[in-house]
Amino acid sequence: MTEKNAGWVVDVSMDPPSLEDNTADADRLKKALAAELGAESVAVDLFLLKHLPYRLRDWNYACRCVVFQTCGRWQLIDVMEPQGGQLAAGIAADLGTTRVVLKLIDLETGEVLAHSAFDNPQSDVGPDILARIHYTENPGGIQELSSLITDRLNREISELCGQADVSARSVYLMAVAGNTAMTHLFMGLPSRWIIREPYIPCVNFPGAFRADDLGIGLNECARIFVFPNSGSYFGGDLISGAYYAGFHENEEISILVDVGTNAEVLLGNRDWLVACAGAAGPALEGGVSEIGMTASPGVIESVRIDPESGKFDISTIKDEPPRGICGSGMIDLAAQLFAAGMIDIRGRLVPGACGNRLKEDDGMRHLTVVFGKDSATGEDLTISQADLDSLIRSKAAMYTIIETITGYVGISFEDVSVFYVAGTFGSFIRPRSAISIGMIPDLPEQTYRPLGNSSLEGAVRLLSSRSATAEIESIRDRITYLELNVNQDFMNRFSAAKFLPHTDAAKFPSVYQAV
Amino acid sequence: MTEKNAGWVVDVSMDPPSLEDNTADADRLKKALAAELGAESVAVDLFLLKHLPYRLRDWNYACRCVVFQTCGRWQLIDVMEPQGGQLAAGIAADLGTTRVVLKLIDLETGEVLAHSAFDNPQSDVGPDILARIHYTENPGGIQELSSLITDRLNREISELCGQADVSARSVYLMAVAGNTAMTHLFMGLPSRWIIREPYIPCVNFPGAFRADDLGIGLNECARIFVFPNSGSYFGGDLISGAYYAGFHENEEISILVDVGTNAEVLLGNRDWLVACAGAAGPALEGGVSEIGMTASPGVIESVRIDPESGKFDISTIKDEPPRGICGSGMIDLAAQLFAAGMIDIRGRLVPGACGNRLKEDDGMRHLTVVFGKDSATGEDLTISQADLDSLIRSKAAMYTIIETITGYVGISFEDVSVFYVAGTFGSFIRPRSAISIGMIPDLPEQTYRPLGNSSLEGAVRLLSSRSATAEIESIRDRITYLELNVNQDFMNRFSAAKFLPHTDAAKFPSVYQAV
Repeated sequence: MTEKNAGWVVDVSMDPPSLEDNTADADRLKKALAAELGAESVAVDLFLLKHLPYRLRDWNYACRCVVFQTCGRWQLIDVMEPQGGQLAAGIAADLGTTRVVLKLIDLETGEVLAHSAFDNPQSDVGPDILARIHYTENPGGIQELSSLITDRLNREISELCGQADVSARSVYLMAVAGNTAMTHLFMGLPSRWIIREPYIPCVNFPGAFRADDLGIGLNECARIFVFPNSGSYFGGDLISGAYYAGFHENEEISILVDVGTNAEVLLGNRDWLVACAGAAGPALEGGVSEIGMTASPGVIESVRIDPESGKFDISTIKDEPPRGICGSGMIDLAAQLFAAGMIDIRGRLVPGACGNRLKEDDGMRHLTVVFGKDSATGEDLTISQADLDSLIRSKAAMYTIIETITGYVGISFEDVSVFYVAGTFGSFIRPRSAISIGMIPDLPEQTYRPLGNSSLEGAVRLLSSRSATAEIESIRDRITYLELNVNQDFMNRFSAAKFLPHTDAAKFPSVYQAV
Repeated sequence: MTEKNAGWVVDVSMDPPSLEDNTADADRLKKALAAELGAESVAVDLFLLKHLPYRLRDWNYACRCVVFQTCGRWQLIDVMEPQGGQLAAGIAADLGTTRVVLKLIDLETGEVLAHSAFDNPQSDVGPDILARIHYTENPGGIQELSSLITDRLNREISELCGQADVSARSVYLMAVAGNTAMTHLFMGLPSRWIIREPYIPCVNFPGAFRADDLGIGLNECARIFVFPNSGSYFGGDLISGAYYAGFHENEEISILVDVGTNAEVLLGNRDWLVACAGAAGPALEGGVSEIGMTASPGVIESVRIDPESGKFDISTIKDEPPRGICGSGMIDLAAQLFAAGMIDIRGRLVPGACGNRLKEDDGMRHLTVVFGKDSATGEDLTISQADLDSLIRSKAAMYTIIETITGYVGISFEDVSVFYVAGTFGSFIRPRSAISIGMIPDLPEQTYRPLGNSSLEGAVRLLSSRSATAEIESIRDRITYLELNVNQDFMNRFSAAKFLPHTDAAKFPSVYQAV
């Protein structure tokens, strides 16, 4: 996977010192390394200096060097035996608000040696970013939240290394991708201004820190790279995703969309990038209705309604009896309800078309998606009119963000060659359904490409490529952030998008062809 | 003394963040600072990041920044209130083999706030470099020697700060100049190869470390700069001296000579530099004879012999009764003995001219410098023929080194506009006497200029100038080190220089005029 010497481990050999060339050991190595890397200079920690002279002599002035670079500054992290089998490992981390995922990588081959995932222990303090940042405003709160995640990471890293029979001392690099709030809390940085206008993080380019400084137990000279962010609402997880999707390489214009409570969108190519983020509402995360939940076994992921019989054909994850519905399931359901005429262009339930599935409860209409006899709980699984309204606001927000950002740049949807959809949502969403309700533009289905956990995979890719940090920093540098909170255009477009699929039917020709 | 903003403390002010400019606090400051410094990037420790957002807001995005640079890498060390009276201090250290001298400086004004000096505690382990390096080869020896000096430095720094009523937390920078062995032992680096052919240090450009990494208690983000060396025998003390003497500025050619057990010589100007070092023998350090000692009260610093009466006119330091003789006193004595005909051209005592001052002991001739009745001890103070032989070897070595280095470059002594003599030796030496015995070239007396503790003063100067490290590094980079151990030319010249003043009388016209 990794080309020899294209990664962070570099073979170097030097002429041994002589009376005619009395350059010191460290400077001799740094010079050879700088030439190999095309670097101006290379820094070395004191800890490594203490070992260097013995090792260089033992190995006759040849060695494999583990290096790292950030903000143009090269660091020599360790030297290893030239032909030895000593492993140089790295850890990629996706530091999610809810879930944290780790992969242990061989830095030389790119091979994944082990992986693990766990719930972010900060959830005990607060389920979301807002609650956690408020918590940091208590005395000692920042330190407490930071320790929660670092202590847990240390335990998980120790297990991860154990799985692959690797010593934590062999881990030289860690790459952490997360949203701006999560990375700030990980680093123990003040984050209270992230959530207050004008929404200013403590740092955009954290760069790399010694693992020790962050309280993480790896090699003594290991570096932990924290992905840069483009502001409070466009974090390192998205920059990592953009890197994984290849935004630094592609000449063609792409869009990357990550959907959660916020929808973040990146548009551009290797020459220019525009980003924006907006509240999409909880509907697309599965947090909307009583039966909404995130993807897991028994959760409804797709719905098919026979237009003749009105029969519901439900699929669940792992085919277990249905117990709830996730964001992509909701989109499928809404698309099918609309196609079957069971909801109208405003998303309102149509009594005549819903038949015995419609009931009224507390003065609000509900639709039974699964009858009690077929559900995991024995109860009816229903969605309310309010759930549908919420979904429509979310889909309208999503579409409007995409429309606003392309409009801002002055391109049409047809200029977009690939439309990446990140995250779990991206893996489950059916583009056809999302188009049907006017959530995403009416483009050929093959334009849409799920990216999976692109935040994690960008971090994995970083560990295998010596040019990664420079590419990631240049992605970050080229991003123009479009602030939607001050965008009047956005509000106008949003109103027009709150219909199924849209007030302007011409924007969704394929939907009307199908209907 | 320091021009506003020309030192390591820099005023910066920024536009406060807004929705239109959501750059993070740290990046906003780094950007403003980089512009002010003409730097490509500026790094910040995690510790400081944790405080930055509060301070920038308290001070409305204006502050005084303490910065440092080494190897082209800029570091932000701390931010202080924009108009506040908060002190930013630095410590200059001359880390001598025998003696350590410290000065506490106000980084903004250059004012010396306090100073102190103490014997290098490593002397308990071994008096000289050789003994100490041998000691490091015992298990734990490196750590032991390093702790000896760092523990003592911590105590002395605490006292130094106490003297000036300054908190050690206000010390942001420390500059340490010392010979290659002393700086290696301070940093705890392997030094065994410094004294073994081909004499290779662990590092030439240590750069700057966090004070914590070196075990020194200063500000949390303080940096300790260790002067670079040009090899095992041309250390950071001399580079510091060269910087103090202004070798990076002068168009005219200068020589810098530092005399101890080794004689180190630097020749050149702002465009080129050649260095060499050679064993000068202990004679010039006062370690040669029974009565030899380093400069202190009661030590003979000058001798005048009346050519008619043969009467000795002796001056001692602080005019106390004589108890020994230092290197410069020995040179004075030899010059006067030669002028009075009491030693011959080979430096041998001439019985007929020495009268009752000559005696024979254990088959060797001795000359009484001070009779018992006049000495501090009540005993005769004598020097032996062996002492004189040793002095002559030392002066021959010194002269030959200077002759070899100018010869190597292809210039004559007359091309040298200033001849700097560093150290205590430089402060006490009488150029006329040194010329008389052929130790230094026969140049006009005003060409010779004592530099004092140039190692310390170079470190002091560094603390006051933001361009210092770049200038020091460029001095180091331009030095070509001439290895005398492999120089046949040296051995030939050395034989010819073992006469008073020289076999070639034409080289010392002023001596023969005077005689």
